Amino acid sequence: MSESTKYFLPEDQMPKAWYNLAADLPTPVPPPRHPGTTEIISPDDLAPIFPRAVIEQEMSTERWIDIPEPVREICRLWRPSPLVRARRLEKILDTPAKIFFKNEGVSPAGSHKPNTAVAQAFYNKEEGVKHLSTETGAGQWGSSLAFAGSLFGLEVSVFMVKVSYNQKPYRRALMETYGATCVASPSPQTAAGRAILAAHPDSNGSLGIAISEAVEVAASRDDTKYALGSVLNHVCLHQTVIGQEAMLQMAMAEAEPDVVIACTGGGSNFAGLAFPYVREKIKGRSVRIIGVEPSSCPTLTRGQYAYDFGDTGKLTPLVKMHTLGATFMPPGTHSGGLRYHGMAPMVSHVKELGLMEARSYHQTECFAAAVQFARAEGIVPAPESSHAIRAAIDEALRCKAEGKAETILFNLSGHGHFDMQAYTDYFSGKLQDPEFDDAALAEALTDLPEIKG
Amino acid sequence: MSESTKYFLPEDQMPKAWYNLAADLPTPVPPPRHPGTTEIISPDDLAPIFPRAVIEQEMSTERWIDIPEPVREICRLWRPSPLVRARRLEKILDTPAKIFFKNEGVSPAGSHKPNTAVAQAFYNKEEGVKHLSTETGAGQWGSSLAFAGSLFGLEVSVFMVKVSYNQKPYRRALMETYGATCVASPSPQTAAGRAILAAHPDSNGSLGIAISEAVEVAASRDDTKYALGSVLNHVCLHQTVIGQEAMLQMAMAEAEPDVVIACTGGGSNFAGLAFPYVREKIKGRSVRIIGVEPSSCPTLTRGQYAYDFGDTGKLTPLVKMHTLGATFMPPGTHSGGLRYHGMAPMVSHVKELGLMEARSYHQTECFAAAVQFARAEGIVPAPESSHAIRAAIDEALRCKAEGKAETILFNLSGHGHFDMQAYTDYFSGKLQDPEFDDAALAEALTDLPEIKG
Repeated sequence: MSESTKYFLPEDQMPKAWYNLAADLPTPVPPPRHPGTTEIISPDDLAPIFPRAVIEQEMSTERWIDIPEPVREICRLWRPSPLVRARRLEKILDTPAKIFFKNEGVSPAGSHKPNTAVAQAFYNKEEGVKHLSTETGAGQWGSSLAFAGSLFGLEVSVFMVKVSYNQKPYRRALMETYGATCVASPSPQTAAGRAILAAHPDSNGSLGIAISEAVEVAASRDDTKYALGSVLNHVCLHQTVIGQEAMLQMAMAEAEPDVVIACTGGGSNFAGLAFPYVREKIKGRSVRIIGVEPSSCPTLTRGQYAYDFGDTGKLTPLVKMHTLGATFMPPGTHSGGLRYHGMAPMVSHVKELGLMEARSYHQTECFAAAVQFARAEGIVPAPESSHAIRAAIDEALRCKAEGKAETILFNLSGHGHFDMQAYTDYFSGKLQDPEFDDAALAEALTDLPEIKG
Repeated sequence: MSESTKYFLPEDQMPKAWYNLAADLPTPVPPPRHPGTTEIISPDDLAPIFPRAVIEQEMSTERWIDIPEPVREICRLWRPSPLVRARRLEKILDTPAKIFFKNEGVSPAGSHKPNTAVAQAFYNKEEGVKHLSTETGAGQWGSSLAFAGSLFGLEVSVFMVKVSYNQKPYRRALMETYGATCVASPSPQTAAGRAILAAHPDSNGSLGIAISEAVEVAASRDDTKYALGSVLNHVCLHQTVIGQEAMLQMAMAEAEPDVVIACTGGGSNFAGLAFPYVREKIKGRSVRIIGVEPSSCPTLTRGQYAYDFGDTGKLTPLVKMHTLGATFMPPGTHSGGLRYHGMAPMVSHVKELGLMEARSYHQTECFAAAVQFARAEGIVPAPESSHAIRAAIDEALRCKAEGKAETILFNLSGHGHFDMQAYTDYFSGKLQDPEFDDAALAEALTDLPEIKG
């Protein structure tokens, strides 16, 4: 088996429980707080927008949480996802390093997102919800929830960040194929959207704005709940099937990673691959864990670790995280899924504890890596995932320079089939690396909420 | 294992030889003839456009032809492809039938086409060719050859049928990502293209025209050969890995197909899945084998079995096949890969021998099947593949009506990620089922070449 290119687990070895890092952290993640009072919130405060089971998972410190059988059954459509040895890339780089990647692009929607979408749709269905509202950046999350909704007979409404809505009409078509509706955000359908449109009629939108719209819809309709595709603890939890599978598959390949890499937008694909390895690291194992983000939205590398709102409209609970400020507006790059002002509180906490590293790259150097990867391995990656590829290639080149035969594992969080305009723009030279706006960051950070008591 | 959803073969069970149906046919396929003299052609006649090894395979009657190890190594990037049991679709249809599909959409270019593209690129590289020219309809073949060319350092030029070029800009972007160049056909770059443009400036193009352009380029440049993505014997040969794998995987699933289904454009994905089963059928096994084509381009169901040109420009050898006439211009439907006036001579011969059935569907009923499939199984199929899905669903419904627990196996030849405009058009009601033009067919058939001697 160790000479294979792809490592598949049998379906009966798909994880039966999610791994909850909260059980193993040396200090707990700071709790969420009420956006008005700034008091620590109770489960009841979240009940208008999330189902009970999801709220329990959000607050849980149990190490293992059983995956319901109907969720596992649906995930068998594509899981366990393959672990792949990038042999051709290794050869082209002429590196002594071994490069492995977990291919989450094999899912119906083309990314890791269905891992949590199916779970969230299941719990909502169980609790009698009829309709889910959500936001989406690049469209990966929206199409994942559309897919999951179609399997459980739930109506799904997606607010899609306008810059991506215009760049990626076929993501919208995919959501509609799964039976969901999709509108550009900011939209005139919500008070939050109308307020932004009044102040900035040409707004490109942002994940923060789209979240405000989706939460508003959920809070104002009895049959509707909200579903979030990243950031929160339960989302990170649902993604841990990735890392659990990877560990079994790395054992099949008779290899152990020295470096574990994933891109970070809201943090969930990173958490999915990395948290099982963070657990090992806490137990004393030597492994470097690297989160990779865009230089245009450098949450972990330039953000402040502070309580902040998850959305621009300041409707969500306050969570302690690395943030650029809820009003920070990232430029309209092609990595829509990484254009978020904050970071998963649990990932932020892991960073503060020194259990991970973070680095940032400009988009053109990521596209160069993506094209090199596509021409070696055949798979055209999502622009988001290309950040992880850039870091993996750089680590492999470092190994070459240092003469070290390390093992590198990265998460290929999704394919780029719906992102080809980005590649067209890259080849035509139209893609820019926007200059980072230090003043805008400084201003957005002055706006962080003050915590009382 | 029999309770699984997906059946994976280990990489070392990937076929080591291609299966050549010519060895088992009760009567031989009529040989190709020279377009000028109409004499039976010799291998030398094909030498200007194909490499020697490919010409040998085209004419071979050996039952098994070894797959070169470098080809197998590259195919391990995605092969063996999964066999999937469509359990959710079965449930929704409430049918006693078992439905299996072979998922060729997992390849880098998203269809079965790389199976032959890699082999053809390998043989050309071995014989010192620097540049490959080809045509593409929907873009599946062009992107597959672009991918294969990038792996072997070959320059690739693709003539893309204009209607698809305009419908599918992201297929072009995919080819460019793999390093190929792609122009709309008819183009001003060739005499064949200029002649069409002079007569029909608004021509939508057709596979027949694009073939003329690509062959012209190959014939006129010493460092250049032509590569064809379907129709010819060697292409059908290279695709037989599909059916060979499927047989092993059906055994893993402890099932045997009563019905084997694939869509037919040029015939290669059909041949790939079906020919190993045709062999069994010749040996006496009871199995129905069904080719499914668009009602707008009904080669097998309404064409004439006769010698005809493979292209509109009348440059190619004459082959005996089911044809609508080389000048027949199919309407611009969304199944670009099925818009071909002819059919693989070997598939045509199998049809004449009564070893297969053929049927045709309108595109809207195929899209309805595609959406039902996507909402059940998560995978959005290529419009071409939706023809096979339509037939599989209809067979499953027949089983329900007749109370028969048959086993149905179809080829999901590709995914539809680059065909989302077609889905958008379908949902908006813009998709039409064009009325078949009987007079145009009759006229095109008057133009069939006369065979001397």
